[in-house]
Amino acid sequence: MKKLSTLIFFAIFAISGLSQKQRGGAEIKQLQSPQNPRIGFVVHGGAGVIPRGSLTPEKEAEYRQKLEEALMAGYKALQEGKSALDAVEIAIRILEDSPLFNAGKGAVFTADGRVELDASIMDGKTLKAGAVAGIHTVKNPISLARVVMEKSPHVMLIGEGAEKFAVKNGLDIVDPKYFWTKERWEQYERVKKEREKQANQKTSKYGTVGAVALDKYGNLAAGTSTGGMTYKMFGRVGDTPIIGAGTYANNETCAVSATGWGEYFIRLGVARDISALMEYRALPIQQAVDLVIQQKLKKLGGDGGVIAIDKFGNIGISFNTEGMYRAYINSDGKPVVLIYKDE
Amino acid sequence: MKKLSTLIFFAIFAISGLSQKQRGGAEIKQLQSPQNPRIGFVVHGGAGVIPRGSLTPEKEAEYRQKLEEALMAGYKALQEGKSALDAVEIAIRILEDSPLFNAGKGAVFTADGRVELDASIMDGKTLKAGAVAGIHTVKNPISLARVVMEKSPHVMLIGEGAEKFAVKNGLDIVDPKYFWTKERWEQYERVKKEREKQANQKTSKYGTVGAVALDKYGNLAAGTSTGGMTYKMFGRVGDTPIIGAGTYANNETCAVSATGWGEYFIRLGVARDISALMEYRALPIQQAVDLVIQQKLKKLGGDGGVIAIDKFGNIGISFNTEGMYRAYINSDGKPVVLIYKDE
Repeated sequence: MKKLSTLIFFAIFAISGLSQKQRGGAEIKQLQSPQNPRIGFVVHGGAGVIPRGSLTPEKEAEYRQKLEEALMAGYKALQEGKSALDAVEIAIRILEDSPLFNAGKGAVFTADGRVELDASIMDGKTLKAGAVAGIHTVKNPISLARVVMEKSPHVMLIGEGAEKFAVKNGLDIVDPKYFWTKERWEQYERVKKEREKQANQKTSKYGTVGAVALDKYGNLAAGTSTGGMTYKMFGRVGDTPIIGAGTYANNETCAVSATGWGEYFIRLGVARDISALMEYRALPIQQAVDLVIQQKLKKLGGDGGVIAIDKFGNIGISFNTEGMYRAYINSDGKPVVLIYKDE
Repeated sequence: MKKLSTLIFFAIFAISGLSQKQRGGAEIKQLQSPQNPRIGFVVHGGAGVIPRGSLTPEKEAEYRQKLEEALMAGYKALQEGKSALDAVEIAIRILEDSPLFNAGKGAVFTADGRVELDASIMDGKTLKAGAVAGIHTVKNPISLARVVMEKSPHVMLIGEGAEKFAVKNGLDIVDPKYFWTKERWEQYERVKKEREKQANQKTSKYGTVGAVALDKYGNLAAGTSTGGMTYKMFGRVGDTPIIGAGTYANNETCAVSATGWGEYFIRLGVARDISALMEYRALPIQQAVDLVIQQKLKKLGGDGGVIAIDKFGNIGISFNTEGMYRAYINSDGKPVVLIYKDE
């Protein structure tokens, strides 16, 4: 079987070659060999149209600083021997608490001017998972997803039922006003005006946040959290809380967190497909994420990106948008924070 | 590449051999060759502990008759040149309107004594999909899922937002009392008493309904509809509305509809995984469904089953429970209706 895998590997390698430019995540190196396992950590803060110069230098610095803060907090947890699940939750909570990203505090508004939050988390060791959708009052949806995974027999809870479960389990509950930010409200009013002119237009930026981790015990975990799309239809659920679409983790393959036009990620089962390409075709992680994002997703007409990590700590990042807020720990143990495509 | 696929095929074939008994779906023959494509149709009405003798002869006859009615209605639609999507919707509506199955009219009650319906549908040609969850007032959730797919830019709508969308699109709205049936209420009260003694016990029967179809244009479709688990937590969503878990369709591979302990089906991404095994390992459909249901699902501790059909009309059925309500059109164009494992 080993010989066969190698054969498949090279066959796929030969046919799926992509240029550096196409890859979107070309800056990522394979970090180490199976003989040298280590901890690894990657976070993202969404993908979309982020052309150079569209952010003020101050704003750009804020984004970079917050991404690095979340990255280092998760990495430190891993260094201290905490689990991949802990690292993912810690980093995502930091991004949720920031008004910069479309998750938690910085969530965008739905068509009826409310916030509706979704999140999910998955443990690659046990394949246990937790997901929540349609949340209005829970400060950190990623923590609620983890509580669903660990303290209920269920994987997914939605709406009021999920919020009751949050209260019962002592999570931080906030007034929906907590999620109001001036920037998001202005964005809502701008999109509202545009939509009144033109129906079904998609938003140009996906601010979902996510993290993937490999801990020192060899376990993988992935998590994702979002406020959805600006001006989305009330009740609309994207890929973030869909295990297999926005989030997947399996110790045998990889951990994946996605961001992008959620409907396309659901239809392709993006995160699950990346795992399947590694399991059934023995693709290296960067090739697996590129095949799904640069070929399958593009072909279907969707856009967005993913971060992924495999059981050896190799990192895969791919996006077909102009930019993606992303940060990872490189092979020297140093943080790398990136926004633009050509960085 | 062709040679390689053949190699992989035989390698997998050799290692995944299962005895007739293990397969659960051993009665199914591969229906025809790629050279002779045809229409094909399969329905299910749930899997679970259905030992021979547990149903009265009258009840058993009722189940068989209703399954055959749904099967023949979908098959007739296909014969008349209607689409796979039409056939799936037509058959599932019949099962939803029957009090016998845990979907629509016959839905079970949640822990707080309500019904909460989920459904999804997917078009293998376009990979478009529609899903709804947490529905209380829509008579036929499968039709709402189709309307979400065809008349919204979204894949998934939940709760009140989904119901508003149903009203806007003129679907049949019913008083929640419509879903009250004596049998389900007694089942609820029985489970409630048991649960008060013993927490987190799982239900022994999964009454989800579903259908998969191949139409004369070579297009595949799959659909699934459910009332969830008796005494489930308010807001709990199982695999039925999760594209890739309970439902998947892709013209390149197969259409799949699942029934069972939903949490396990989500964690494995069952429907998407079956499609991946066909796409990446060239497994024949019966081997793909058996590998996931008899090996992966069992290993994880879950139970249930799937029906599937490939682009040539070959059928795959597999379940690891004592029985599964299922019906399909055989190679002579005749209906076959089965309930027990050893039938």
